[in-house]
Amino acid sequence: MFQSFDVTASPDQGPPRLSALRVTMAEHGAEVFVVPRADAHQGEYVAARDERLSWLTGFTGSAGFAVITSDRAGVFVDGRYRVQVREQVADVFEPVDWPEMSLLGWLSDVAPNAKIAFDPWLHTPKEVRGWQKAGRDVVPVENLIDLVWDNQPAAPAGKAHAQPEDLAGRTASEKIETLASTLKDAGCCATVLTLPDSISWLLNIRGSDVAHTPIVQAFAIVTDAGKTILFVDPAKLTEVTLAPEVTVATPESFLVACGGLDGKVWIDPATVPQAVFHVISQPHEARDLCALPKASKTDAEIAGARAAHARDAVAVVRFLNWLEGAVERGTTEIDAAVQLEMFRRETNVLRDISFETISAAGAHAALPHYRVNTQSNALLRAGEVYLVDSGGQYQDGTTDITRTVGLGEQAFSVRQAFTRVLQGMIAISELRFPKGISGADIDAVARVPLWRAGQDYAHGTGHGVGSYLSVHEGPQRLARTGHVPLEPGMILSNEPGFYVEGAFGIRIENLIVVRPAPDQPDQSIETLYEFETLNYVPIDREMIVMDMLRPDERDWINAYHQECLHRLAGQVDAEVAAWLHKVCAPI
Amino acid sequence: MFQSFDVTASPDQGPPRLSALRVTMAEHGAEVFVVPRADAHQGEYVAARDERLSWLTGFTGSAGFAVITSDRAGVFVDGRYRVQVREQVADVFEPVDWPEMSLLGWLSDVAPNAKIAFDPWLHTPKEVRGWQKAGRDVVPVENLIDLVWDNQPAAPAGKAHAQPEDLAGRTASEKIETLASTLKDAGCCATVLTLPDSISWLLNIRGSDVAHTPIVQAFAIVTDAGKTILFVDPAKLTEVTLAPEVTVATPESFLVACGGLDGKVWIDPATVPQAVFHVISQPHEARDLCALPKASKTDAEIAGARAAHARDAVAVVRFLNWLEGAVERGTTEIDAAVQLEMFRRETNVLRDISFETISAAGAHAALPHYRVNTQSNALLRAGEVYLVDSGGQYQDGTTDITRTVGLGEQAFSVRQAFTRVLQGMIAISELRFPKGISGADIDAVARVPLWRAGQDYAHGTGHGVGSYLSVHEGPQRLARTGHVPLEPGMILSNEPGFYVEGAFGIRIENLIVVRPAPDQPDQSIETLYEFETLNYVPIDREMIVMDMLRPDERDWINAYHQECLHRLAGQVDAEVAAWLHKVCAPI
Repeated sequence: MFQSFDVTASPDQGPPRLSALRVTMAEHGAEVFVVPRADAHQGEYVAARDERLSWLTGFTGSAGFAVITSDRAGVFVDGRYRVQVREQVADVFEPVDWPEMSLLGWLSDVAPNAKIAFDPWLHTPKEVRGWQKAGRDVVPVENLIDLVWDNQPAAPAGKAHAQPEDLAGRTASEKIETLASTLKDAGCCATVLTLPDSISWLLNIRGSDVAHTPIVQAFAIVTDAGKTILFVDPAKLTEVTLAPEVTVATPESFLVACGGLDGKVWIDPATVPQAVFHVISQPHEARDLCALPKASKTDAEIAGARAAHARDAVAVVRFLNWLEGAVERGTTEIDAAVQLEMFRRETNVLRDISFETISAAGAHAALPHYRVNTQSNALLRAGEVYLVDSGGQYQDGTTDITRTVGLGEQAFSVRQAFTRVLQGMIAISELRFPKGISGADIDAVARVPLWRAGQDYAHGTGHGVGSYLSVHEGPQRLARTGHVPLEPGMILSNEPGFYVEGAFGIRIENLIVVRPAPDQPDQSIETLYEFETLNYVPIDREMIVMDMLRPDERDWINAYHQECLHRLAGQVDAEVAAWLHKVCAPI
Repeated sequence: MFQSFDVTASPDQGPPRLSALRVTMAEHGAEVFVVPRADAHQGEYVAARDERLSWLTGFTGSAGFAVITSDRAGVFVDGRYRVQVREQVADVFEPVDWPEMSLLGWLSDVAPNAKIAFDPWLHTPKEVRGWQKAGRDVVPVENLIDLVWDNQPAAPAGKAHAQPEDLAGRTASEKIETLASTLKDAGCCATVLTLPDSISWLLNIRGSDVAHTPIVQAFAIVTDAGKTILFVDPAKLTEVTLAPEVTVATPESFLVACGGLDGKVWIDPATVPQAVFHVISQPHEARDLCALPKASKTDAEIAGARAAHARDAVAVVRFLNWLEGAVERGTTEIDAAVQLEMFRRETNVLRDISFETISAAGAHAALPHYRVNTQSNALLRAGEVYLVDSGGQYQDGTTDITRTVGLGEQAFSVRQAFTRVLQGMIAISELRFPKGISGADIDAVARVPLWRAGQDYAHGTGHGVGSYLSVHEGPQRLARTGHVPLEPGMILSNEPGFYVEGAFGIRIENLIVVRPAPDQPDQSIETLYEFETLNYVPIDREMIVMDMLRPDERDWINAYHQECLHRLAGQVDAEVAAWLHKVCAPI
């Protein structure tokens, strides 16, 4: 299994570790020490050695941070983790509702005049400036957790492998040349890259340093002449040949190399470690130089995404068919997650799952980021919904799909909400829009049917997705915060939802990719875009309240199911094919 | 008539005036002088004495500016005025496409190192800072146009009259108290007000200083104790009684009073004259303190708006009925505008029109801001569309409505576009949304049907509207630039359109007001809003392509027309009533 269902909470280990940390803090004169979830690469997943937050506090969520003073210890978590944090941390830690309460707001009460000590490798200039702007003194220190963490795991040393050119669509040399030319145009001598998915994309390499995201943890410098230095443990590179303009250096030499850059350096203050920013004498502050070119996938990457989704869909429809008898068989959420991973493994090319499967029955489905463990594990029961949000990492693409299935008869209000969520998802699927429009401009389009009924969801409509990289990739987003114009090749999720705490949750998710729209008869928009849908997996027709649908929505559903049948019926056995015919019948 | 149709261009007067200005510029050592359209109050309409731009150049559009050097004279106008400016200005002036070309961009070519001389009463700190940020030296000077303008008209001295409390819904004293309390909370000793619609709103007064907008041109200071000084020619005030906390001072004493304010002063750098900002020693920069409370209309103002629109609708349906035989009668655009104003005057309470009527036949309808004059005046012809965008100023409310009517048979593609525009207008009309949502979030909702066909319009979906004040009032907007959350009582226009240059134009506009939505059965949004429609005037059913409509859209149209009939049939004569029955029949 690529996923464990262990209960990871161990609240009893927190207090002695906190005491040890405070001794070290006192020795270093640190009045306040911040322990973030992030590592030096600001990624969503971190290696075992970087799990400092959970080592200290017991809290294992994917976002949050702790702030430690001599007598207080706040653990800041967002709405997703307010229940979980209480189960995972000991009494010496106080859960803090973040972002309603900010680090600075909390400190102004707890330690009004104290300096903030922090590890400059784990915080960005943007963060540190925020503290300074609020009038705080800040002190960079070595990582005080690392000093007290016995048996801290070593840095990951997984082998890197090549991402073949026929999947990447562009050689590393071509990408480097583009970057070098942008640097020249901006009058910069070089850029410093610290995001592993940027570096992995740029050099057409993938790795196995962290779970679920096949990045190689490394740093890099690219000069305006295209000379590229990759700072990485050379032991990781024994199975890969790098582009000719790339030389390798040890991670230990990275900071010195940065300090030696003579001229304007393109650097992203929102993602680079403060330790790196600090040694750059002439920073040119701008978004990570790989972010936008990486976001617009090549034709080869889009073809790969289609192939990966077609393959993944076979696993998912086998799973949905299997789910038909699940209630009678006494299936649990863990059973279902295991079975789904098994079907994905039977593609024989699954590299990993793209995130921990959200396998959520009944009220658990109301938690958008529910992770089942042996303690929470619930039976799938008749009359409840079952929500499964999952994806696979294949060498040709990263998949992500959510389906919500009614287990037996459903309350009318649940089916109404399901229908509205589906209508929002269809509205995005059918949308055409001019060049220049961003996710922020169209996020509401998915909400109109829910809003009309006084309903909404507290997350964005969609996130960017990488190509055999991170399943959450910026800068494009279908959300009020997504201000980057959508461009062809950008892959996004389209996943409206609706959640009633303690009762049920609904989410329907496909991935979509921006493409030029065909010419329209009386078109006046110069450059018109639309979305191509990548996932073809049936949507539970039994959940739809038919007379809420408009004719165009009904047509969309029928065409979508027709396409599901066309693509999948020949790829599955007779039993699943028969099931497909049933669930794809026109409505 | 509240509107003239004269050809206002007189290009021959420009060259001698420009020469005279250049002599004065040389005497004052001004290398570059900027001539804006704005007056000291940054309003949409200006008094005759402030028509400096048109006096100098001949250009009469409602937006633009001139930049004069010793040998160049650029007249900067936006897309609406590119044709008009060429007809109105002499060869010594060069039309400049703005905002594609900026003042600074143009100067960097024309006068790379010259200082910018400007009248600090006519420019805001925001503008001046923009010049300085770009490295320009700036020199405030007295107005050099005024020095060479013989017979410059005097400042307007129209009488102010009271806006009765039963229409305003709050007394001036109550409004002042609210402002004073906000000032206290912000630690400010006072605020300086320079926008006449803010001051007119605050003091419940209206005036006649400029066309179409019943403001009183004045300045004011409000202290944190509620003490209010109104700086205005006292001759304007002989027919009005001000609230007890208001004292009157001469406009000449305004600057000295501002300079004497001892403490933090709330001031809006986007609207206040630089001359005023300059004398404030401790500015607290924030949006005009009246803008938001003014935007959320009181119950009395909303009731007034309903009454004004009901009254105005009678005039508009009489006009639309009259239009039936217009082609046969040989009607021109001017005839139609005159007739419409006549019907409005027959309400007996019309105070003014709320802007110059856009009466546009055929290809003229493709110009969103077309103003008919005796030269452009076209016949209404069969086979063309006729677009009329107009409004009235009544003491209880400001109206604004656009209808597009097919004169005889229309091309199918024109009717398709009309139907899409109508679908967008209905989508906004039917929308519900949570508190916190702004116009920027939902502007796209009106565009979805057009976008789907590759069509769009190059303006926002709607603007804010005042209460017997400016027909264009911020800060709320239904546009990508409208980032102020929508709140109950805000009145907006809802006016998607579609324009094909040289061929035809379509716009359908109602005013809408934000209100709390009724509770929904399974509502989860805490605070839910919707729009109430204010205009009930039939929409041309002959223009609709029926089979493009969804059932909910058809229902909306039928319900809307039913309501038109219900509200209007009893208010008009038998002929118009019969016409109403015909055009409001269900589809």
